[in-house]
Amino acid sequence: MLKTIGGGVCAAKGFTAAGVHAGVKAGSAPEKNDLMLLYSEAPCNAWGMYTKNVVKAASVLLTREHLRNGAARAVVANSGNANACCGGSMENARRMARCAAAALGVAEEEVAVGSTGVIGQTINISAIEDAIPAAAKALSREGSGAAAAAIMTTDTVKKEEAVSVEIGGRTVCIGGISKGSGMIHPNMGTMLCFLTTDCAISKGLVKKALEQAVRVSFNRISVDGDTSTNDTCLLLANGLAGNAEICEEGEAYARFVQALTEVCVRLARRMAKDGEGAKHLITCTVAGAKDEAAAERLAKSVIGSSLTKAAVFGCDANWGRILCAMGYSGEEFDPERVDVTFASRGGEVAVCRAGRGLPFDEDLAKRVLSEDEVTIGITAGDGPGCCTCWGCDLTYDYVRINGDYRT
Amino acid sequence: MLKTIGGGVCAAKGFTAAGVHAGVKAGSAPEKNDLMLLYSEAPCNAWGMYTKNVVKAASVLLTREHLRNGAARAVVANSGNANACCGGSMENARRMARCAAAALGVAEEEVAVGSTGVIGQTINISAIEDAIPAAAKALSREGSGAAAAAIMTTDTVKKEEAVSVEIGGRTVCIGGISKGSGMIHPNMGTMLCFLTTDCAISKGLVKKALEQAVRVSFNRISVDGDTSTNDTCLLLANGLAGNAEICEEGEAYARFVQALTEVCVRLARRMAKDGEGAKHLITCTVAGAKDEAAAERLAKSVIGSSLTKAAVFGCDANWGRILCAMGYSGEEFDPERVDVTFASRGGEVAVCRAGRGLPFDEDLAKRVLSEDEVTIGITAGDGPGCCTCWGCDLTYDYVRINGDYRT
Repeated sequence: MLKTIGGGVCAAKGFTAAGVHAGVKAGSAPEKNDLMLLYSEAPCNAWGMYTKNVVKAASVLLTREHLRNGAARAVVANSGNANACCGGSMENARRMARCAAAALGVAEEEVAVGSTGVIGQTINISAIEDAIPAAAKALSREGSGAAAAAIMTTDTVKKEEAVSVEIGGRTVCIGGISKGSGMIHPNMGTMLCFLTTDCAISKGLVKKALEQAVRVSFNRISVDGDTSTNDTCLLLANGLAGNAEICEEGEAYARFVQALTEVCVRLARRMAKDGEGAKHLITCTVAGAKDEAAAERLAKSVIGSSLTKAAVFGCDANWGRILCAMGYSGEEFDPERVDVTFASRGGEVAVCRAGRGLPFDEDLAKRVLSEDEVTIGITAGDGPGCCTCWGCDLTYDYVRINGDYRT
Repeated sequence: MLKTIGGGVCAAKGFTAAGVHAGVKAGSAPEKNDLMLLYSEAPCNAWGMYTKNVVKAASVLLTREHLRNGAARAVVANSGNANACCGGSMENARRMARCAAAALGVAEEEVAVGSTGVIGQTINISAIEDAIPAAAKALSREGSGAAAAAIMTTDTVKKEEAVSVEIGGRTVCIGGISKGSGMIHPNMGTMLCFLTTDCAISKGLVKKALEQAVRVSFNRISVDGDTSTNDTCLLLANGLAGNAEICEEGEAYARFVQALTEVCVRLARRMAKDGEGAKHLITCTVAGAKDEAAAERLAKSVIGSSLTKAAVFGCDANWGRILCAMGYSGEEFDPERVDVTFASRGGEVAVCRAGRGLPFDEDLAKRVLSEDEVTIGITAGDGPGCCTCWGCDLTYDYVRINGDYRT
């Protein structure tokens, strides 16, 4: 039913994108794209979700203001500077929007703005203004990769995804790009994510679909427990697929949400896997909890535990730390009913049954944990609640990267 | 008024202690003490505080049961195994208490038990039972150091403290030993702490004084955000100082609490400074918050932030991460009123005023942050609330230690 397709954030009809080098960060390599532009040839119904951090970057405040009417047409975003906690940041965010609007011939209020990078340093706004016309000229249907590269900071791989799905007899495409590597935590992290679709769907349902998809994807990953000041996730729907506009929550809406969720989960997994310094993607599934919310709290506590993360880095089947992390999650459960299993392409090994250690083959456990994608499967009781969350291991490289990021 | 004295957990009259090698962990070096005994020649009023983790070690459950009547006489504790999440752990904890009681000639219910080490492996109870008589024979007034060594796991230094204070014309001593290096988080961590005093003080006030002292000391440190299954903090008061028993909250009680708090804060700081892999003790003071609880939440969020911890490791004055951590603490505040200063023996450098970066001397900042004890001073507004918390930096060694702890 869902088809994986290429094209990323430009997979949907009518979207073009570009990424260029503006030199936002002094001394950055000229081949490093740091400014991206995304444009829809038709007006879009749009919605955004933002960081819940009390300290919010200017880009977040401005974009929230611009998208309040549920409409947008373009996104301009930079890496290399968060444009947060410094003088004039709000005016500089406005200048980014104004300059992009002029270059694209749209209204300033139709432009969303994203920023990511170091906090507390004044952004080089002239460099951005100088580069925007070139970015506008470079807009193309093939621009997704360049745009994805332009929002990378400590990310090591570009993150693009797209799927197509039949809705009302028409092929609808949903695609997106995202970045995020450190300062990633449930309720979003230092992430930017721009999602596009040619689906015709009402403003109210664009908002609702985005909220549903983010809840089970970006809000279920953690790299380091730090929630950033700049997180932004936008969905732009320009309606060019030609389907009858989805205005209520029937089957068409369900198909759309499913496809959107799939794109978001894939991007979220990529972010967790590319967590700063990460060697392992850790998927934690909790079943048997009292309800979904309980399962989610348990799983998040496990993927957020520094000790569990370090154990996975060391390929050490130290399941005691998993029970310990469940125990301080704030969720009540009976430790004597907990089962824990590690699994990967390397095999599967049950390590704990009914809260007690099982004898297990240490060599097999090492083999299972040596794979780059590891699943921690937990049964917490016999309740109906289940949830999957994603994280990564804690490594020397995480410390190296963050011990000297600013300078 | 307060005098720092030697003697640690045996500083107070009538207490003796010992530490011996039992071989709890297979293959542990014969010179590593792993079993300690603490004994009071007179009955004690006693109280304990324990982990809030849902998963609790048998030692915690048993000690809570034994101390319910507010009385104790001895403590037996081991390192090398947490005696948690494995078959027969409760029976093994009882065997430790029973064996110690027999060796000391006291009732089983008068013995508190502590365990620390790996979770989920069956404890070598015979080794412990074999060693308890030797430990009982080795009890001495000079035994504090050997006992402190016997409860160390990844700790690199012994933690002993003692003070004396005049109460009602008598010299009262308060001393203690503690361990704790990883799995340390506010609301206690993998810590054991045994406090003794010869002060005559009622059962009710022993409990109250311990709660007051722990709240502002052990509950305000964090190493890695993991709350363990085994935390135990005990206070034993045998009354041998000969002061008139403190039975109400007057001046004598206030002096006692102040002295007890001083011992606890000193031990807590030592634990944070000796955090797994730590190179820096980080003291975070928050002033100007709406109230003490708000200040505490803000300070704990800062010392708990992996990114802030890694920045201190790198001697990088990346104050944006501090504002960010405050922002996701769950506490409301006005980012535009926040000031941040770094200070140490190396000097002081103001980096943020009213939520905006200040130009500062990077060389001075490096010098300040290169000291082994660094203070992050935060003013969060003009409220009356203030609080101090302690943590440590995140280093390569933390990852190394925890990537391969179990094997």
